[in-house]
Amino acid sequence: MDEHKIIQKYFSDVGSAYLAEQGVRVSVGDDAAIVSNSPNKESIVSIDTSIKDIHFLSSMKAKDIAYRSVAVALSDLAACGATPAWYTLALTMEDFNEEWLEDFSEGLRMISEEFKFPLIGGDTTKGSLSISVQVTGYCDQGKALTRKGAKEGDLVFVSGLIGEAARGLKALQNDEDNTKEVLSYLRPNARIDLGKRLIGIANSAIDVSDGLIKDLGHICSESNLGCEVLIDDIPTRYTKPLKGREINQGDDYEICFSANEKHLPEIEVIAEELTIPITTIGKMTRGNSVEVKDSQGVEVRIQDGYGHF
Amino acid sequence: MDEHKIIQKYFSDVGSAYLAEQGVRVSVGDDAAIVSNSPNKESIVSIDTSIKDIHFLSSMKAKDIAYRSVAVALSDLAACGATPAWYTLALTMEDFNEEWLEDFSEGLRMISEEFKFPLIGGDTTKGSLSISVQVTGYCDQGKALTRKGAKEGDLVFVSGLIGEAARGLKALQNDEDNTKEVLSYLRPNARIDLGKRLIGIANSAIDVSDGLIKDLGHICSESNLGCEVLIDDIPTRYTKPLKGREINQGDDYEICFSANEKHLPEIEVIAEELTIPITTIGKMTRGNSVEVKDSQGVEVRIQDGYGHF
Repeated sequence: MDEHKIIQKYFSDVGSAYLAEQGVRVSVGDDAAIVSNSPNKESIVSIDTSIKDIHFLSSMKAKDIAYRSVAVALSDLAACGATPAWYTLALTMEDFNEEWLEDFSEGLRMISEEFKFPLIGGDTTKGSLSISVQVTGYCDQGKALTRKGAKEGDLVFVSGLIGEAARGLKALQNDEDNTKEVLSYLRPNARIDLGKRLIGIANSAIDVSDGLIKDLGHICSESNLGCEVLIDDIPTRYTKPLKGREINQGDDYEICFSANEKHLPEIEVIAEELTIPITTIGKMTRGNSVEVKDSQGVEVRIQDGYGHF
Repeated sequence: MDEHKIIQKYFSDVGSAYLAEQGVRVSVGDDAAIVSNSPNKESIVSIDTSIKDIHFLSSMKAKDIAYRSVAVALSDLAACGATPAWYTLALTMEDFNEEWLEDFSEGLRMISEEFKFPLIGGDTTKGSLSISVQVTGYCDQGKALTRKGAKEGDLVFVSGLIGEAARGLKALQNDEDNTKEVLSYLRPNARIDLGKRLIGIANSAIDVSDGLIKDLGHICSESNLGCEVLIDDIPTRYTKPLKGREINQGDDYEICFSANEKHLPEIEVIAEELTIPITTIGKMTRGNSVEVKDSQGVEVRIQDGYGHF
């Protein structure tokens, strides 16, 4: 089948109900997409590649692979406090399988509907299965959250539960299918609503993809600070006392952020209104790295976060 | 090596001299890039994936692979008449090779300098070598060229010479190194200056990537018209009379466009000022496909253009 026809059939109407409100004049199928610039806004742009048997299991349904590939890209927008506007897709696949594409396209539709943002362009090529998703969102000019900007004394927070997706991946690999953790891995929650509410409250934020401690380390290095974390304060369903290998496995796609203590009441309201647990896990310090301590104040050795090479 | 360090070392300063003028507040290294929206402009967005031994030879230098991967994406902006603003990169590579990355990064720098646009974000992953480049450019609101919009009676034009890159690829495969054609393949000219000049003149445009006749077919289908092309009018260095297999090989990255005859004098001026040959090759008709004829008026059978599947 011709690439052009594949694109028309499976990708031209993904989230197309939202094209007009996002100012998209030309979408999937031309040389490029054409989008009106929103005045007084800034664009938040992120690209993420998901690769077979590294970022997802090849045994997963195409629908889940599609959903997950877009969700992990959206998670970067969430960390910036952005509202999703649209996305493009570079899909490399081994062969042309209509059933697989139909299911893949269904996964795209699901997440497009959930976040009300359209797919506006893409490229399909032949090769080892790999999906690059570029997402664009908007923030009011100058308001987006970054990894920089944490202040000494800021409290450090994390949303949700850490380690659920890692447990889910293990369950999937053992063919245990119907657990809640499996869903955490297959369908990560992009914390868009939370990110938006944190604008004006958080001084720095990052999404937890490679491991909570590793990602928190990026906040430290970008903000030229250190951080102290009490391991047993980290929200998980592992048995306490927690171990260094349990909290830095990645794939969580929760938001880790720092904020001044005075915002605690607002943060509690946000957690309640969004029904997302938000937990204080530590404090920004004058140091230059993340120190994780147990209840005796002894430093815990943390397993390295995810590394690609 | 840590992904974060790879990104910092090889990608954080590619075209960074142009960050400020492109309104980029946060570039490579955070969760996402942050860019001020240009008012009264529309964004032109395209993503293109280049895969080893399909879109480039694995024997090519990393510098040429990088340059080519960005150039073919830019070519889509050229076809829309857009001015390049910035790009992001999803690089999947088999292993971590500093020498290769250094050279790859050099190729990115070259094309960033040439078009004065910065790399603002990306993702590096491990897998079979593949490069997805998303480019964004700007046009004045409502002005971008598309494949739609050709009018019956429009003349059809193409820039440059067709078939040079295909000859170059053949030369490369035969280890003939120093020819002009090889450069056409390794370093395609993104016709950005030409595209910009065609705004207000061309009624439709496309870049020639999969094959001149195949791509012209997209203008026909999107504009609900046909087109008649005289094969021997197609600008090439093949010996005339031209054959159907010579003119539809793709990789040309020239601009094919349609325009009213009255613009001929302006088009001649543009060709002269940019020193780019622009040749009339046919005319838009009431039909629904591209008919290629020889000097006797007999239809020529054209080899299919490039198809991925």
